[in-house]
Amino acid sequence: MARAYNFSPGPAALPEVVLRQAQADMLEWGDAGASIVEISHRGPEFMQVAAQTEADVRTLLAVPDDYAVLFVPGGATTQQALIPLNFAEAGQVVDYVVTGHWGKTALKQLTPALRLNVAASSEADGFRSIPARDDWQLTRDAAYVHITANETIHGVEYRPAWGNPAPDTRDVPLVADFSSSIASEPIDLSRYGVVYAGAQKNLGPVGITVVIVRRDLLERAGQPRAHMFDYTAQLQNDSMLNTPPTWNWYLLGLTVRWMLDEGGTSEFDRRSNEKSRLLYDAIDASGGFYRNDVDPRVRSRMNVPFFLHDESRNDAFLSGAREAGLIGLKGHRVLGGMRASIYNAMPVAGVQALVDFMKEFRDSHG
Amino acid sequence: MARAYNFSPGPAALPEVVLRQAQADMLEWGDAGASIVEISHRGPEFMQVAAQTEADVRTLLAVPDDYAVLFVPGGATTQQALIPLNFAEAGQVVDYVVTGHWGKTALKQLTPALRLNVAASSEADGFRSIPARDDWQLTRDAAYVHITANETIHGVEYRPAWGNPAPDTRDVPLVADFSSSIASEPIDLSRYGVVYAGAQKNLGPVGITVVIVRRDLLERAGQPRAHMFDYTAQLQNDSMLNTPPTWNWYLLGLTVRWMLDEGGTSEFDRRSNEKSRLLYDAIDASGGFYRNDVDPRVRSRMNVPFFLHDESRNDAFLSGAREAGLIGLKGHRVLGGMRASIYNAMPVAGVQALVDFMKEFRDSHG
Repeated sequence: MARAYNFSPGPAALPEVVLRQAQADMLEWGDAGASIVEISHRGPEFMQVAAQTEADVRTLLAVPDDYAVLFVPGGATTQQALIPLNFAEAGQVVDYVVTGHWGKTALKQLTPALRLNVAASSEADGFRSIPARDDWQLTRDAAYVHITANETIHGVEYRPAWGNPAPDTRDVPLVADFSSSIASEPIDLSRYGVVYAGAQKNLGPVGITVVIVRRDLLERAGQPRAHMFDYTAQLQNDSMLNTPPTWNWYLLGLTVRWMLDEGGTSEFDRRSNEKSRLLYDAIDASGGFYRNDVDPRVRSRMNVPFFLHDESRNDAFLSGAREAGLIGLKGHRVLGGMRASIYNAMPVAGVQALVDFMKEFRDSHG
Repeated sequence: MARAYNFSPGPAALPEVVLRQAQADMLEWGDAGASIVEISHRGPEFMQVAAQTEADVRTLLAVPDDYAVLFVPGGATTQQALIPLNFAEAGQVVDYVVTGHWGKTALKQLTPALRLNVAASSEADGFRSIPARDDWQLTRDAAYVHITANETIHGVEYRPAWGNPAPDTRDVPLVADFSSSIASEPIDLSRYGVVYAGAQKNLGPVGITVVIVRRDLLERAGQPRAHMFDYTAQLQNDSMLNTPPTWNWYLLGLTVRWMLDEGGTSEFDRRSNEKSRLLYDAIDASGGFYRNDVDPRVRSRMNVPFFLHDESRNDAFLSGAREAGLIGLKGHRVLGGMRASIYNAMPVAGVQALVDFMKEFRDSHG
């Protein structure tokens, strides 16, 4: 089939212009005499790619000067292991707020040297809400508070309607997993101690993670750890403590550059509002044929899980969608049903095509 | 410039046929309706890529059934951190044999919970040799013995002339970093407990590492660690504990398939002999104009560091080489001088072109 509208949750759709550039560069990178995949990370060509990418990330996300930007191999789960190692000392309490599958996964990355406090959880509610800030049981001297800004599977996102997208944690640094919502709106980074995002949703391909960290936190002793797991060592080595995933970094750079060219985070904020409203309206106006169970105040603009009233029609829905040029809609095995991931690279026209198909499917199966 | 002969140490040259395939697949993968970079790692298309890659790795490297094959995000240095966490308990001794820069880097990945014993080191010798096996001070009940099969910077490799490529460590498992020599010759994996190799030299692009581990070692308790850092959890999840670096994995698969098509490890063994002999002969026959200082019994067939007698001509050598279509020859900053990395993707013709240039340069500057 030709290129479809791809609603995959991650790895996810990339802008076609980025893929075409990667295709053009595949055999030869500029005047290097080799592919970008084949050249040394310490050569002038790749060093330029790396420097430009950091500059563009700083522009796109309005990163303040007192924050470092690291490009770390692996995904967000790896950072969930490195963050406690770097920022919490043995015996210290770490506060976690759990609002979905990935927030829960983060707990599995802690070792017994730390004292875990789950300050709030919406698990009893099936992860359909975010506990009110007043109900959080925070620890006064916790090493940090960890939240998941957007839950990719459960479709739950800290939205202004909830109160504030960045909860107030007073003097305790707020650490946020922004993997699936980074760059979808302007955020005030100064409200966070650490923001991290696996690239494979909004920033590029899987295999590299952007970690934005307030520099004073890098002075913390943390726990004994491998040199490779030390964020400060990474910073001192320009994120090249060992050979970094160069192609992934390069593709991240192309994607960030594309977002800047398109108008930056305020433009993607506007588009995310338009796309998510189209889709939620189609669900809510379906008379129960489709259903999304998330508290409307915290419905994700990036990942929209939904269910058919008659689940025996799931396969027919998916195969019909595929015929209509819409792929990647099968829900995560944890929840079942459907899920449409509508990251920055998904055009409004793609969501419109999905909404049209959903209406047509309902009309013929209602 | 057009595609040159690329002697880069890693990221390194890839077979052109692999790059052309990646280029062709960049916008659409088979009938998936999307690029291989954009599709879910849990979808049928990528699951097939992953399964085929493991099958091909097992064939190429003759992996015995009682060994697991893991595909882990990041590079070899990350494994140097994970191996002690998985295979050694707090308080246990771990034996390391240090024969170059990367063997030394491995020591920095250990935490104080373990007792490090450097069983042998050639550092006093400038890492130009491998200490005789009889001089190793091994620990009877060590958790494992770690060696670096090939030192990429210092150009030192365990060769049969040294005695045996796989030193006898009795009942203590031998752990070997094969990053820069994997698949360059048939090896008897049953002599190793763990063999690991960052992909970016002989196996594909940077960003993924192949870890081959004897299954019984996975039953060891190791040290408290993040779920993400647990090899057994990776195995139980088909190396998809989180979203793996899919494009890197796919390119690794293409590269392994190419090696099988070319005749497998015995054919690359033959070519490695031919290529390395060409180059060392040119150096040794230069009347001191070029120099390689490594003990001839352990000279690497993959990485050939060499020095000009008159180092003031280094820049002229490098720019002349570039004009002749030969790139990536600048030595690592640790050693200076030159280095030619001649991995599996480097054809004999490329080494011949280098040798011809070296002779010409010597004739005009001798």
